[in-house]
Amino acid sequence: MAGGGDELKLLGLWASPFVLRVKLALSIKGLSYEDVEEDIFGGKSELLLNSNPVHKKVPVLLHNGKPICDSQIIVQYIDEAFPGSGPSLLPTDPLERAVARFWAAYVDDKLLASWLQSGKSKTEEEKAEAFKQTLMAVENMERTFNECSKGKPFFGGDSVGYLDVTLGGLVAWLHAAEKLHGVRLFDATRSPLLEAWLERFGELEAVKVVLPDVDSLVEYAKQRQAAEAAAAADAGGN
Amino acid sequence: MAGGGDELKLLGLWASPFVLRVKLALSIKGLSYEDVEEDIFGGKSELLLNSNPVHKKVPVLLHNGKPICDSQIIVQYIDEAFPGSGPSLLPTDPLERAVARFWAAYVDDKLLASWLQSGKSKTEEEKAEAFKQTLMAVENMERTFNECSKGKPFFGGDSVGYLDVTLGGLVAWLHAAEKLHGVRLFDATRSPLLEAWLERFGELEAVKVVLPDVDSLVEYAKQRQAAEAAAAADAGGN
Repeated sequence: MAGGGDELKLLGLWASPFVLRVKLALSIKGLSYEDVEEDIFGGKSELLLNSNPVHKKVPVLLHNGKPICDSQIIVQYIDEAFPGSGPSLLPTDPLERAVARFWAAYVDDKLLASWLQSGKSKTEEEKAEAFKQTLMAVENMERTFNECSKGKPFFGGDSVGYLDVTLGGLVAWLHAAEKLHGVRLFDATRSPLLEAWLERFGELEAVKVVLPDVDSLVEYAKQRQAAEAAAAADAGGN
Repeated sequence: MAGGGDELKLLGLWASPFVLRVKLALSIKGLSYEDVEEDIFGGKSELLLNSNPVHKKVPVLLHNGKPICDSQIIVQYIDEAFPGSGPSLLPTDPLERAVARFWAAYVDDKLLASWLQSGKSKTEEEKAEAFKQTLMAVENMERTFNECSKGKPFFGGDSVGYLDVTLGGLVAWLHAAEKLHGVRLFDATRSPLLEAWLERFGELEAVKVVLPDVDSLVEYAKQRQAAEAAAAADAGGN
């Protein structure tokens, strides 16, 4: 599928920011692949369970049948296995690579983790604390954009790089959150650089073809919330 | 310090498995560095706080004054910034690199996390459950050794690689735990390959010069436990 006899197959879930990150990397590198939608909540496929027996999670990229797991590891793999396709995602300079890896980990461990936590929190206090952490993480990413982009349009400089793709997996969800809760995580006051990046990144053709429809995401979020509330009620929780 | 005008300074803590991992990488690559011991519990240095303002944690490697944070990112940096020094830690093949990164993350997120949890658990049930998870992680690492080493002495094959170094940071603690609790995490029944690896790895000169004295670690662990118990008592905890 990828050309040159390479066959790429992605086991994913259309709404997952981790899967979207991999789809963005594949699209920006100009690599074609078979998109396999997993039924995460109904029943995972044998192929997924066998390909990622440790975590049993999407995304999994199968390259000529060999599985690669974990979205950030997959994106680095795509960059290393297809150096001739599209732009390099990781910077060439070792220090810049280390900085990109550090902040990519930060996006998952702090920004995304606290944002998800704010949605799951049981009390208003917990929710407010988690959201405060999320906004602090946004402020750190704003400074990081300034340092990494060096005045150019993307974290990766003139072209999209590892951090653009990592944060890019969240872009459709940032828009969905605004529709759902009226909250703009990246705004002109707190993070003018990220707000401008959000628009610029979303306008790229390679990104447009990947990002899901925001209204569908909003609908999906409502359905998941209802399903989780029903499961909690069944379990006697609240 | 590292030669060629390069100055390497490591902000660390002698007993930390994360710091030991970086020291192992530097030693195996034959790179000299200034070893700066931080007073983690007494008061962190301004240099540490300024070099890692986000997490405020060791290890931090300063290369000509530029900070690199997070032990796994530092090890990859060392490998990429000094390709001519010693053996390559990461494999050359992109798929093997992805596999090494996956299992290195697993060492921290599952093996080490559950092992630390088993030490911190308040109830016997929690402790037993966490230790069960640790043993499962050891079994997975045993299989991983078989897959990665392909019958050769190390995860990295004929020479020490990224996974050897990652797991290597735990080696002195494996011995200390045996002295403290009489528990062998890697043993001949559960993990004969890892047990043999543990001995083989510990006999390397580049490793011997780095690993701390096991009795000192045992003493350190007792002191930390006493300090934490006193702090919990002060806070009215149990």
